[in-house]
Amino acid sequence: MYSAKINSCLKKEKISSGDKVKLIQKDGKEYEGILMPRPDFGGSKDNIILKLKSGYNIGIKFEESMKIKKSGKGAELEAFPSLKFSSDKTLPKISLVATGGTISSRVSYETGGVKWLMDAGQLFFLAPELQKIAVFRKIEKPFLIASENMDFGHWQKLAETCARLLNEGDKGVVVTHGTDTLHYTSAALSFMLKNLTGPVVLTYSQRSTDRGSTDTPMNLVCAAKVAATSDIAEVVLVGHGESADTFCIANRGTKVRKMHTSVRHTFRPVNDVPVAKIWPDGNTEYLGEHKKRAEGKVIADTKFEEKVALIKYCPGANPEMIDFLREKKYRGVVIEATGLGHVATDESKNNWLPAIKRAINSGMLVCAAAQTLYGRLDPLIYGEGRKVLSLGVVYLKDMLPETAYVKLGWVLGHTKDTKEAEKMMLTNYAGEITARTGTETFLY
Amino acid sequence: MYSAKINSCLKKEKISSGDKVKLIQKDGKEYEGILMPRPDFGGSKDNIILKLKSGYNIGIKFEESMKIKKSGKGAELEAFPSLKFSSDKTLPKISLVATGGTISSRVSYETGGVKWLMDAGQLFFLAPELQKIAVFRKIEKPFLIASENMDFGHWQKLAETCARLLNEGDKGVVVTHGTDTLHYTSAALSFMLKNLTGPVVLTYSQRSTDRGSTDTPMNLVCAAKVAATSDIAEVVLVGHGESADTFCIANRGTKVRKMHTSVRHTFRPVNDVPVAKIWPDGNTEYLGEHKKRAEGKVIADTKFEEKVALIKYCPGANPEMIDFLREKKYRGVVIEATGLGHVATDESKNNWLPAIKRAINSGMLVCAAAQTLYGRLDPLIYGEGRKVLSLGVVYLKDMLPETAYVKLGWVLGHTKDTKEAEKMMLTNYAGEITARTGTETFLY
Repeated sequence: MYSAKINSCLKKEKISSGDKVKLIQKDGKEYEGILMPRPDFGGSKDNIILKLKSGYNIGIKFEESMKIKKSGKGAELEAFPSLKFSSDKTLPKISLVATGGTISSRVSYETGGVKWLMDAGQLFFLAPELQKIAVFRKIEKPFLIASENMDFGHWQKLAETCARLLNEGDKGVVVTHGTDTLHYTSAALSFMLKNLTGPVVLTYSQRSTDRGSTDTPMNLVCAAKVAATSDIAEVVLVGHGESADTFCIANRGTKVRKMHTSVRHTFRPVNDVPVAKIWPDGNTEYLGEHKKRAEGKVIADTKFEEKVALIKYCPGANPEMIDFLREKKYRGVVIEATGLGHVATDESKNNWLPAIKRAINSGMLVCAAAQTLYGRLDPLIYGEGRKVLSLGVVYLKDMLPETAYVKLGWVLGHTKDTKEAEKMMLTNYAGEITARTGTETFLY
Repeated sequence: MYSAKINSCLKKEKISSGDKVKLIQKDGKEYEGILMPRPDFGGSKDNIILKLKSGYNIGIKFEESMKIKKSGKGAELEAFPSLKFSSDKTLPKISLVATGGTISSRVSYETGGVKWLMDAGQLFFLAPELQKIAVFRKIEKPFLIASENMDFGHWQKLAETCARLLNEGDKGVVVTHGTDTLHYTSAALSFMLKNLTGPVVLTYSQRSTDRGSTDTPMNLVCAAKVAATSDIAEVVLVGHGESADTFCIANRGTKVRKMHTSVRHTFRPVNDVPVAKIWPDGNTEYLGEHKKRAEGKVIADTKFEEKVALIKYCPGANPEMIDFLREKKYRGVVIEATGLGHVATDESKNNWLPAIKRAINSGMLVCAAAQTLYGRLDPLIYGEGRKVLSLGVVYLKDMLPETAYVKLGWVLGHTKDTKEAEKMMLTNYAGEITARTGTETFLY
């Protein structure tokens, strides 16, 4: 919301968000652009935000002495122009894969709803800086959906697309994606893509591209920088590092989670530090170890078992849920256990041990991950954990529950042998298990 | 682990953790105490930690010039002495309710396992400062169990115990409890205890009471301070505010979550700031609004419906789980939805809408909470959310999923009417719904 002062001026002139307006200063200087809605976070309510013809937003402190006039309907917002791509042959070649989500959408000022951008090239209108970073060799749209509608079939298609683009010679691939399940996709690609020659960089937007607070431009620029110029050859998720538009962080695909429904720095590393910090107009700082670029052929190893589940233990929860999965012939389950890896183990009616035992005896792979999200499991400290462990439950150390769920489907897609699957679950393929969890990774 | 230098000295003298030792400085000064294991976090590996006869631990920097000798087996650790309570009539009266958990346990050096303390009074041996804060009128042990074995029956018993103690005249009640499900219990007591006259203060220990890094003394002292001298009349959870032994935070019972498997400052506020910061030897700083002490009679309103469930939506998850709950005659479910409150809503086989519709038509109360944990739901922003909302799913704003699960059981214990239950779910009873979620509450 703008300040009361601004709102009363806008009302007087019958101006609303999305209108083209002219702002005239006391000294005669003029600004023309589309009036943007006021962001929810940050900035001053006394600043009017205009989207200029260049695609950039500016905030101008509103003074009583200023005049504001409507200069046209903001019809051009209805279809962002599609910018021409750079053809500077000296720049690295990368490709863009658009899959849907807020970053591929815009608000219609008429209906208030969100629509897909017609053309991925329209993203360049929002972030003209992209032209100086890379040549976009290809722009592909294997599907355009909200990420909550994705499943392993989409992950497979996406892995195959990224492998092909890298094998065609791209230095890296940028994938734009909805935020809701982006961390599940980043985990899936981390397991499915083998022998990466360069980075697969997932990015997103938490605010639609025509809001004043949109995170699209900075996220896109930083993602393109990582794809084109970093030395990383992993699946990473790039987005705002903090609330302000200062820098982005690149998080390892298996160690990241959407932690907030709405803030722009929603994707946080869990039990890890980011791989890198990226300043949109400056350096890239590497924070830890990562796999480096290499020659070779990228392989999309996408076999996947869909009969897997993720369930959360909570006090009083009836273990009949485990029996149901067994009867439905699920091949594996990840239990989000409490604390260091516990479930009810006493003689009450809700004791989970008998149902877990029946599941394991039937050939199901039963794994435990931490409901706390942060920290490592350790079944040996308390008697309750030892009881669970002794049944054959696989304790997944510091692996995120969401990553564990995706990995379980991938592992069971590769073997019918439970012992082999257990071994694979405890093998570190893509940074999903770390040797040590430092306190600096808590609430990063 | 101690430093290699210390370990080699200990090995030479055949000393191990739990032994009584004498440390002799170059200048002849001696320290005698039980050799404690080295904490995992914090402090220097070059400091030897001794538990003195007073119950306090000290860390002494080990120098080459020092001598260390075994002076006896640490047999006294096998049973901490039970300290006499203060009888200073000028101090406020409070009571202690011990329910089990690490804070009521100690490691046996012989077996490596964890045993319960025999006597809650033994806790006073660990924190002699308690005697200066309050008179402990009663010490009760309604049950002694690991918190992962608790369910609503234990919550009911605990609520009744706390109400009775307050009605007998206590200024406040301290409840010691295992950490695993402590935040579920704090939510349950928040709903069950009405007309609180003073605080019900839950506290815990992440490290057993005979480890060098135990958090028991500071947590107990701060919890007792809140119970005896604060002006709060809510259910709060008190524990380490940060990694070091500097201060504790008191978190609102409905807005707190165990966020790390092992660190001592594991309980964090979610979508709220703490009610207060408590310095163990100093002031209490209040950070936000809270209910104040009042006269009257505390009521334990403990009716509870156990046929409720908490399930987490994830990509590819089959909605048959919802059908299963319906067939098993569950009366309500909380779905941990993605992002602003989404599940799969497209035409794929995993579309959750038909199953949700069947559940609602059968009379089940279907609620949505945020899988991200932080932030607020908003079903109106995207078409997917609107589809879910239009079925009659109750969007629980910024309520934690765990709190929502507990509240659902409590609400359905009070009414058979779904409309009334929906209204109750959206009524703020104990701070579980806030009007606004500020960014300062993210990753506090």
